Amino acid sequence: MSDKKKNNDELIKLVLEGQPRAIARMMSKAETGNPDDRIAMAKIFRHSGRAHVIGLTGVPGSGKSTMVRSLTLEFRKTGRKVGIIAVDPSSPFSGGSILGDRVRMNDLTGDDGVFIRSMATGGALGGLARPALDTVDVLDAAGFDIVLIETVGVGQDEVDIVSAAHTVVVVSAPGLGDEIQAIKAGVLEIADIHAVSKCDRDDAPRTIADLQGMLSLGRHTMRSREWKPVVIPTSSERGEGIEDLVAAIDAHLEHLNKSGEMEMRKRRIAEMRILKSAEDVVRERLRKQRDGKLAVLLDKAMNRTIDPHSAALELLDGFNEKDG
Amino acid sequence: MSDKKKNNDELIKLVLEGQPRAIARMMSKAETGNPDDRIAMAKIFRHSGRAHVIGLTGVPGSGKSTMVRSLTLEFRKTGRKVGIIAVDPSSPFSGGSILGDRVRMNDLTGDDGVFIRSMATGGALGGLARPALDTVDVLDAAGFDIVLIETVGVGQDEVDIVSAAHTVVVVSAPGLGDEIQAIKAGVLEIADIHAVSKCDRDDAPRTIADLQGMLSLGRHTMRSREWKPVVIPTSSERGEGIEDLVAAIDAHLEHLNKSGEMEMRKRRIAEMRILKSAEDVVRERLRKQRDGKLAVLLDKAMNRTIDPHSAALELLDGFNEKDG
Repeated sequence: MSDKKKNNDELIKLVLEGQPRAIARMMSKAETGNPDDRIAMAKIFRHSGRAHVIGLTGVPGSGKSTMVRSLTLEFRKTGRKVGIIAVDPSSPFSGGSILGDRVRMNDLTGDDGVFIRSMATGGALGGLARPALDTVDVLDAAGFDIVLIETVGVGQDEVDIVSAAHTVVVVSAPGLGDEIQAIKAGVLEIADIHAVSKCDRDDAPRTIADLQGMLSLGRHTMRSREWKPVVIPTSSERGEGIEDLVAAIDAHLEHLNKSGEMEMRKRRIAEMRILKSAEDVVRERLRKQRDGKLAVLLDKAMNRTIDPHSAALELLDGFNEKDG
Repeated sequence: MSDKKKNNDELIKLVLEGQPRAIARMMSKAETGNPDDRIAMAKIFRHSGRAHVIGLTGVPGSGKSTMVRSLTLEFRKTGRKVGIIAVDPSSPFSGGSILGDRVRMNDLTGDDGVFIRSMATGGALGGLARPALDTVDVLDAAGFDIVLIETVGVGQDEVDIVSAAHTVVVVSAPGLGDEIQAIKAGVLEIADIHAVSKCDRDDAPRTIADLQGMLSLGRHTMRSREWKPVVIPTSSERGEGIEDLVAAIDAHLEHLNKSGEMEMRKRRIAEMRILKSAEDVVRERLRKQRDGKLAVLLDKAMNRTIDPHSAALELLDGFNEKDG
């Protein structure tokens, strides 16, 4: 047995025991996705599949980070372990925000039943879906009952990630500007649960009524035929609504399990992950082509003697045999 | 000659003459990317390469749509034809916003020297980069001197699109919330030019100083070694700064051409487009696999007897021969 394999086997053992430093190290391996660590990640995957994965998304200013914190504290009351993956540049968890927010999360970081991981956005081509969902496996295998993925609800990559959760919570807030509202519209239809923040405000009933009106128009049929999305008012100011939100999340999980929809969602998520991984592999192989085919095609594209799509077809022609 | 080919040849002729309805039809073909229309798009590509492609991005509330409008009017003063591609759900051009904004763009739509195209976000896997850049080709081939791509500066897909411009303008505004500022940080480093909107406001000097401070720290070296990004204050309220912004854009174009950096950028853009197209092709081929390999792998993944990455490798194994 090689040292590398031995080290990884020891690491996996510690991850499965829930040892925080081992979890953090395995997550780094999951993120970078080195071929050497793929065997370890495959083993981790075999031990995953028990956590309830919750995607939480909302536009900037919707108060979703505060809600992640409140939700976590509420889940902890029932003893459930909570892993958090923040891929949102505006989240205090991902380090994107201001000191005030950081202070607010201090009550989470001292708790062994909570693990927070932030993921940097802005990598090269490929996006965050593959690494984000691999880190979900790590938390899942490490015995976290709940894995919360927080993303800002803008951009296809972020929507892909949050759609890969079993339960999707979309956070709305009253009083956001029109430009923000326009952006928000794109993400509403993936919600299983609508959480409305800041319901101590005078204009909150309007936001709640708007969401309920939208749901009555039947747009909720996009994600599930049997589950009717609910609207949950909350107020972190008054400490209200978070029990209701947890109850709605638990009810959704029960629905998924009883209706057989959980199997369908897991299958859809697995499909998405396999295809994203395949795309990553192809991208890597194309970039590594040793025969300089890409450089030749680039010269032609610069002369406008070949278009990008035809160049892509030429590039793909037989690339698996040579470079796989 | 088939009817289809004849029709496409006629359409291409009309596009090259700048006929608006032909441009719109060709753009629809570019967006959907049907194999039948790829030959037409390849011909369009051969006639492109003259336009100055400008990417304009900024967070919600930064006033970038107003700036696109002002910029367009300013470019028109010198007789330059302007094509606009709005992939921003908060833009009035893309139909994501409110009536007030729509009214503000009326003075553009009556002008033959301006063509506005909006692209819907929220497609399936794959993103908007390929279709957005193909529509740039159409406007370019149709003789537009300037092609402006407007995106909201959040999400990898949007950043990829705007990075594929020759000149990138990032719009900042004073007085945005902390959450918005945190998101903004991710896009600042791709700017060739920083445009600050709403400089009639009292807190604008702070925003300008912050940007200048950031630039003095040398972060601008990320995109270009020789061009030092500039900060241009503007005010649509007072009608100020847009001439300066156009002058900065023109100066950047001159720099690109004189320094040889334009060739480098065009090469990088072409490479990105070829690789994105190749990924699209592979994604399509994988989804169409007729032998049910994906379904078998999905069953295994559901049983946790194979992980997504290993499944991807199996899926790719020899797929080109069978399904190409």
